[in-house]
Amino acid sequence: MNTEEIRFALAQIDTCVGDLDGNARKVLEYARRAAHDNADVVVFPEMTLTGYPIEDLAFRATFRRAAWNTADRLAADLAEEGLGDLYVVVGTVGTERDSSLPQNRLVALHEGVVWAGYDKHFLPNYGVFDEFRIFSPGSHSMVLEVNGRRIGVAICEDIWQDGGPVSELAGRDIDVLLTINGSPYEEGKGDTRVDLGARRAAEVNAPLIYLNQVGGQDDLVFDGGSFVIAPDGTLLERSPRFMEDLSYWTLGARGQAPKASTLAAELDPDEEVYTACVLGLKDYMAKNGFTGVVLGLSGGIDSALVAAMAADACGGERVWGVSMPSMYSSDGSKDDAADLARNLGAHYDIQPIEPLFNAYQSQLELDGVAAENLQARIRGVIVMAYSNSKGLLALATGNKSELACGYSTIYGDAVGGYAPIKDLLKTRVWQLARWRNEAAKRGTGIGGLAVVGNESGSHGVPCEEIIPVNSIVKPPSAELRPGQKDSDSLPEYDLLDKVLAAYIEHAHGRADLLADGFDEQTVDTVMRLVDRAEWKRRQYPLGPKVTSLAFGRDRRLPITSRFRE
Amino acid sequence: MNTEEIRFALAQIDTCVGDLDGNARKVLEYARRAAHDNADVVVFPEMTLTGYPIEDLAFRATFRRAAWNTADRLAADLAEEGLGDLYVVVGTVGTERDSSLPQNRLVALHEGVVWAGYDKHFLPNYGVFDEFRIFSPGSHSMVLEVNGRRIGVAICEDIWQDGGPVSELAGRDIDVLLTINGSPYEEGKGDTRVDLGARRAAEVNAPLIYLNQVGGQDDLVFDGGSFVIAPDGTLLERSPRFMEDLSYWTLGARGQAPKASTLAAELDPDEEVYTACVLGLKDYMAKNGFTGVVLGLSGGIDSALVAAMAADACGGERVWGVSMPSMYSSDGSKDDAADLARNLGAHYDIQPIEPLFNAYQSQLELDGVAAENLQARIRGVIVMAYSNSKGLLALATGNKSELACGYSTIYGDAVGGYAPIKDLLKTRVWQLARWRNEAAKRGTGIGGLAVVGNESGSHGVPCEEIIPVNSIVKPPSAELRPGQKDSDSLPEYDLLDKVLAAYIEHAHGRADLLADGFDEQTVDTVMRLVDRAEWKRRQYPLGPKVTSLAFGRDRRLPITSRFRE
Repeated sequence: MNTEEIRFALAQIDTCVGDLDGNARKVLEYARRAAHDNADVVVFPEMTLTGYPIEDLAFRATFRRAAWNTADRLAADLAEEGLGDLYVVVGTVGTERDSSLPQNRLVALHEGVVWAGYDKHFLPNYGVFDEFRIFSPGSHSMVLEVNGRRIGVAICEDIWQDGGPVSELAGRDIDVLLTINGSPYEEGKGDTRVDLGARRAAEVNAPLIYLNQVGGQDDLVFDGGSFVIAPDGTLLERSPRFMEDLSYWTLGARGQAPKASTLAAELDPDEEVYTACVLGLKDYMAKNGFTGVVLGLSGGIDSALVAAMAADACGGERVWGVSMPSMYSSDGSKDDAADLARNLGAHYDIQPIEPLFNAYQSQLELDGVAAENLQARIRGVIVMAYSNSKGLLALATGNKSELACGYSTIYGDAVGGYAPIKDLLKTRVWQLARWRNEAAKRGTGIGGLAVVGNESGSHGVPCEEIIPVNSIVKPPSAELRPGQKDSDSLPEYDLLDKVLAAYIEHAHGRADLLADGFDEQTVDTVMRLVDRAEWKRRQYPLGPKVTSLAFGRDRRLPITSRFRE
Repeated sequence: MNTEEIRFALAQIDTCVGDLDGNARKVLEYARRAAHDNADVVVFPEMTLTGYPIEDLAFRATFRRAAWNTADRLAADLAEEGLGDLYVVVGTVGTERDSSLPQNRLVALHEGVVWAGYDKHFLPNYGVFDEFRIFSPGSHSMVLEVNGRRIGVAICEDIWQDGGPVSELAGRDIDVLLTINGSPYEEGKGDTRVDLGARRAAEVNAPLIYLNQVGGQDDLVFDGGSFVIAPDGTLLERSPRFMEDLSYWTLGARGQAPKASTLAAELDPDEEVYTACVLGLKDYMAKNGFTGVVLGLSGGIDSALVAAMAADACGGERVWGVSMPSMYSSDGSKDDAADLARNLGAHYDIQPIEPLFNAYQSQLELDGVAAENLQARIRGVIVMAYSNSKGLLALATGNKSELACGYSTIYGDAVGGYAPIKDLLKTRVWQLARWRNEAAKRGTGIGGLAVVGNESGSHGVPCEEIIPVNSIVKPPSAELRPGQKDSDSLPEYDLLDKVLAAYIEHAHGRADLLADGFDEQTVDTVMRLVDRAEWKRRQYPLGPKVTSLAFGRDRRLPITSRFRE
């Protein structure tokens, strides 16, 4: 073996926030495999031991102490197993005692000790990130020496900002730049990361290793897709997306051209988004101890897609679909719901709401929107009854277009603990439904996940279509009054979704939207609906607004967390 | 007039986020009054023109531009009215164009122009504050010269942190330190601010003016209580709490001892908390356009106190109390609810839930907790039906103790857009109910707010007690099964509230709680309940968890905001 070569193992794992022992066990298991395959260095994602993001757990002294003990014990365990030679690079929470906030830290475990600490310099505080609130920043770059080679290190945001540690490392003659990341999935972000990686590799004039975590954590999905890239932009290694993985890449001896390794196949855009939704739900269930889900099946496309995703996440036999027809439900809708449940191998119950609606109306005599909301809320009560009595996770089936416009009933169809398609515009919902049906016909897997009905007969039915075509092609309707259509209240979805993308995603103001070429009436309608819906949504959280007395501070802790003290 | 003297007007006003025109109109009105009373300088709270806190409105270019135009126009309007001599100190959003984030800025309007900008240095990012996320910090202290005297300025957090602008001003020979604030209410915080003010006044060796905003804004209540304090700790002026105010204080000529002005009376602790709750609700209603409220009246103490607060906020005739008895409701409870509504002059409807419960049960056959939750959810549907059909704000009546322990039903009694007593422990609820009855008997006002029933006959009933004594003294029960008592599931409230204060408010871990002297069984019970409830609450938000695709970013905008673009 050329002592100048370094064999890196890229351990793209799925951690759980607060599960210090479980995360450490997984590190040990992957380190064993890496050592068996002759790796010199095994690299894990940002905040490996604690999970990421830890939110206000950072403030708990008991948590920080437990994390430090875990790192110490893990280093000792590795050495005891004869793995002391291996450099095990993990992320964890910092130990500084003279600072009021801890650090987001990278450490190397080697020869039985916790060695070499680097603290994240840039603490992101935008979008879904809140790190400046809970961490104190590091101020120095760090170079790790292994086999006489110089490994510069950085953590996630450090490579997204100019200056700071990467710019320092450019002057420190490093052989490789190693970055550990907890970078949440966004559509198209894989390419953005590779472009960025190429830029930073060129900046430091050395290959860059980008190691990302994978898996769902609360409202985030991490997509993995780790890679190694050369300073000239050549991709040297690419790990798969949306699954745990252990891949290898070797830094060649000094003066040699960088060696290429395996490149995992890329996903098509629909498969990528669908898989992200399924993985998010699957991990949310697993990490929170849910083994089944319940949702209302209306016969419409939204609940159909959510049911398919749920079946892909946990198996059709763990999905309870409840049809809750009213006096306004069409026969077609009821048939479509039943067909879907059969295709998925899901449980299927029918709970008519007309008798309940009449019982309320004999007391309340509601009309208009109040009467429409009443129907949705009766369904919400039924879904929660299934959730409570069977211990199922209730799924909300709203899509981004209708939620953005407030075309949804608070405490009604909005009821649920998880909303798998809340971020999909309606036009995307249709696309994914078609894509899912085609995947079933092709019999192909979905981003490596186990899939329901991908071969005929897996649930005793030939799955030429999973989602009934009628659910995809019929005009969308809430069916809360006779003959109601979404288009009575909203612009056609093709147009609406374009305006929503510009207004919400790209923060275009009214003048910008008109300059985009949208007509004035549509712009004003959509802006009014969105602003009103946002106000309603903020106004009616489950835990309603409170006056902030001394006692009013909410702790912000992860939903999914195994840490209890 | 001694030209060396400066007469300050302290304009403690209630602004509304995003209501640029309305806020500017109010500044103009107070400036007129101040000029009429011969003030040289009139001081307004932090972020006067924009309202505070503005959250993600800071990111909107249309909003920032509109705010700058408002400041320009206001300066011109002041000059046109002949008020150009007056120095008008207001807060607003910064104008810097080369920074990605705007500033939290203080400006002086004088002689028709926007003059002298100081940018907040310390951007709080803890507890309810999120400023580092939306603002860029200033880096220089500023001294404003008026009549040859030197006025150092600072914004809110700048005086809470050591170092920074105050420490710079200590070396700049200032005559007075002027601070503008948006400091939210916490119990006992008034004294903390005065102690801090004294410390900073001593540091700069000059009197300190502390000008705070007043009023409710979303989930915060600002309590006013502006003051002026001498370097030796003598209070020179104190404005009232929980109401708008215009007071004066004169900085004496050089070499003179500081002059004292009027000191508003202090409130007793129960009155302070009660008034904070009422003001928060009152402003939330006014700023969001609600003219009435609906709540379930169970006959218990929580709904009774909330109803009394609501009547104090908007008048009994704008309160709809709905009694929703079940087969488990006692006659006493129904009588207490009716008596309360009569005392308050509130609307009172009875909506029995037994027929509805039976209708659901004929389909669902629930038992145990699922059947208990069903009752609470039927009530939630009824409250929301009133809210929808009459345009009323639904009030949730849960207290801190039961919410912390999860003794509450999601989508049931937790339904509502505002929760006036969510931050009051149960023992405090009882105290405030007793205090409110005594205030009614004394016929005194409540923190300067208009009060229902503070003299007999105001609603045609003699108000010897507003809240029925029986509601205060009977053992608390959810009445969801025969003979149920809170104490079946929870420790006695005297003990529970002490453990909750230690565990939640003071973040004591298990070992700390045992060292506090609580017994092991109680500690473990309470920790288990609280952790489980927190998990449930985070898990079932109204807008459920989503996978974070590109579209997943939520805008964080104020609920109460008048800005629409």
